[in-house]
Amino acid sequence: MSSQSAPGSPPGPPLPGMFARYKDLVEQGLAAALPDPGLDLADLNIPLQYHLGWTDKDGIPATAPSSQGKALRPTLCMFACDALDGDLNHAVCAAASIELIHNFSLIHDDIQDQDVERRHQPTVWSLWGQPKALSAGDSMHCLGDLAMLRGAQWGVSPQTAVKVSRILTEAYMEMFEGQCLDLGFEERTTITIDEYLHMIACKTGALIRSAVEIGALLANEDPAVTVAFASFGNYLGRAFQIRDDYLGVWGDEAATGKSTDNDIRRRKKSFPAVFALDRASGAARDDLHRIYAQEELNDTDVERVMTIMDELGAPQYADRITAESADLALRALASIDLPVWVRSEVDQLVDFLAHRQY
Amino acid sequence: MSSQSAPGSPPGPPLPGMFARYKDLVEQGLAAALPDPGLDLADLNIPLQYHLGWTDKDGIPATAPSSQGKALRPTLCMFACDALDGDLNHAVCAAASIELIHNFSLIHDDIQDQDVERRHQPTVWSLWGQPKALSAGDSMHCLGDLAMLRGAQWGVSPQTAVKVSRILTEAYMEMFEGQCLDLGFEERTTITIDEYLHMIACKTGALIRSAVEIGALLANEDPAVTVAFASFGNYLGRAFQIRDDYLGVWGDEAATGKSTDNDIRRRKKSFPAVFALDRASGAARDDLHRIYAQEELNDTDVERVMTIMDELGAPQYADRITAESADLALRALASIDLPVWVRSEVDQLVDFLAHRQY
Repeated sequence: MSSQSAPGSPPGPPLPGMFARYKDLVEQGLAAALPDPGLDLADLNIPLQYHLGWTDKDGIPATAPSSQGKALRPTLCMFACDALDGDLNHAVCAAASIELIHNFSLIHDDIQDQDVERRHQPTVWSLWGQPKALSAGDSMHCLGDLAMLRGAQWGVSPQTAVKVSRILTEAYMEMFEGQCLDLGFEERTTITIDEYLHMIACKTGALIRSAVEIGALLANEDPAVTVAFASFGNYLGRAFQIRDDYLGVWGDEAATGKSTDNDIRRRKKSFPAVFALDRASGAARDDLHRIYAQEELNDTDVERVMTIMDELGAPQYADRITAESADLALRALASIDLPVWVRSEVDQLVDFLAHRQY
Repeated sequence: MSSQSAPGSPPGPPLPGMFARYKDLVEQGLAAALPDPGLDLADLNIPLQYHLGWTDKDGIPATAPSSQGKALRPTLCMFACDALDGDLNHAVCAAASIELIHNFSLIHDDIQDQDVERRHQPTVWSLWGQPKALSAGDSMHCLGDLAMLRGAQWGVSPQTAVKVSRILTEAYMEMFEGQCLDLGFEERTTITIDEYLHMIACKTGALIRSAVEIGALLANEDPAVTVAFASFGNYLGRAFQIRDDYLGVWGDEAATGKSTDNDIRRRKKSFPAVFALDRASGAARDDLHRIYAQEELNDTDVERVMTIMDELGAPQYADRITAESADLALRALASIDLPVWVRSEVDQLVDFLAHRQY
């Protein structure tokens, strides 16, 4: 059974309460990390604020905050800190840092993938050109680093700032490795599921894992607890990405806000494609290899690939591996002593990430 | 008088002794900052080492180190620390960090400018494509940050690591602002010399200034001394960039290793062009505006621009403003108590940067 909702049904599980609870603090952290509009940041200020959903492309403050994304990573960082009864102020700068780095990586990712739309909006490079988008991304990377290096204003000691900055920077390194592995996949039609899982562990998992790990680290001194939270974040990241890949093929474009061409037409080696190329045999296999060797796919090609994916049970397999990852995430925290409200939110979070429609 | 050497004459002033003196330490710092070749950095390792001149494009270690550049910024950082009798080990990680960040910015700069050659070699993007070059640059940025965050291994305290990392990151921010201002210049034909000087103070000056400032900061606790060194670095950076612009038009391509097309053909708004567009009048002005409005310049166009520049005295003016900057650099250190060997090397350095042929 695919977990796609039927037309008219509610759009998947609700966003867990943690997203609303830490929203104000996360936004405070981001506002403190972005440069004062009065500062001379050449003409990078508007692209940066536009990308974060704060202004339109002319710099006019946005009224609807819907385009800002879920702020998953900073929310996870705040939640991990809160779950262990830490001082939330200490997590604010780390959360801002992580969100800015994530967003910087999206700006560069959109250049690499030549994506013209994200979160229902034109991408930065498609509005301001590649050279300026490249510098805008680099600037946001620096702003992310500075958010943590200026942690003293949130009560973070230099020792902790260095420790957290190292974990974060090492996670970004993994993220770039993952981006590179992903680029390499574009030229290949033989990719094992293990190779795919390693790629997403780098590309998506490292930053989500480090967000949870850092939140925990800021609130406790027991390495075993921090390791358990890191492991929780690791499996969350896997569940999140496979669900993301699922939505890239079978999701509702109006809900996801992704480009109107789905991942098949763009020949992305996301989970459904990797699975189908790995499992297909006979005529199906020949068709897939022929279609994925083409420069451009027409409607008939896309339909044929979707039929093969359905016949091989790709949506069900994606659901199964997502559910397994969700289960491993829950198990990672099983032995940690946590209050009832934390357990309840962990359950909601895992359910949301595994079954979300956007 | 232009300072170009006549055919057969020695290629400008010799490289000051400091470049050889700190070479081994700088290379140790860089080697410690780069990932172990055994580590899984996807396939980014080779592009990174290739860009630094350590390997060829197939990953074979280079025998001739000539393509590695002058390592100006790390040398300045080491020298400033040494001049104030600081512990050179403390400067090693900062020097490595600065050099990696400088090199990361070059990888991205080459993408932005679509330059196919640097230091007599094909650029990273021209060999591996833009998407991978973008990730390679991002990775080198992270490696640069990590070099400083891992400063404990060189005896740097967390307090100092945070302080230095902040200065560096703020300098990179300025560098991106400068890149953006420079991109904006491409579309304009009216740029004042003051606007140009502000742009290079950001694009080139910030990193050179921070290299000197950090070296001084690591060796002394008197803010006035650190400020004097920062000011010295600031004027050095200006002299360096205007000389660079001079060489981009009137330099010997075999010595500079820049792309075979000079900056005029590429319509770069470097100092000679900004000066000529600012000062020309009558027919010369009309010709310049007509030529700089074209998409492509032919040999006749390039010759006409060079004639106008000569008639306006652009090479002499570039020399004069370089000499003035060099003088201001020397004056910045005039009131600081420094040993004789330091004064002597400062003089050599300033002379080299103002009159170098490469």
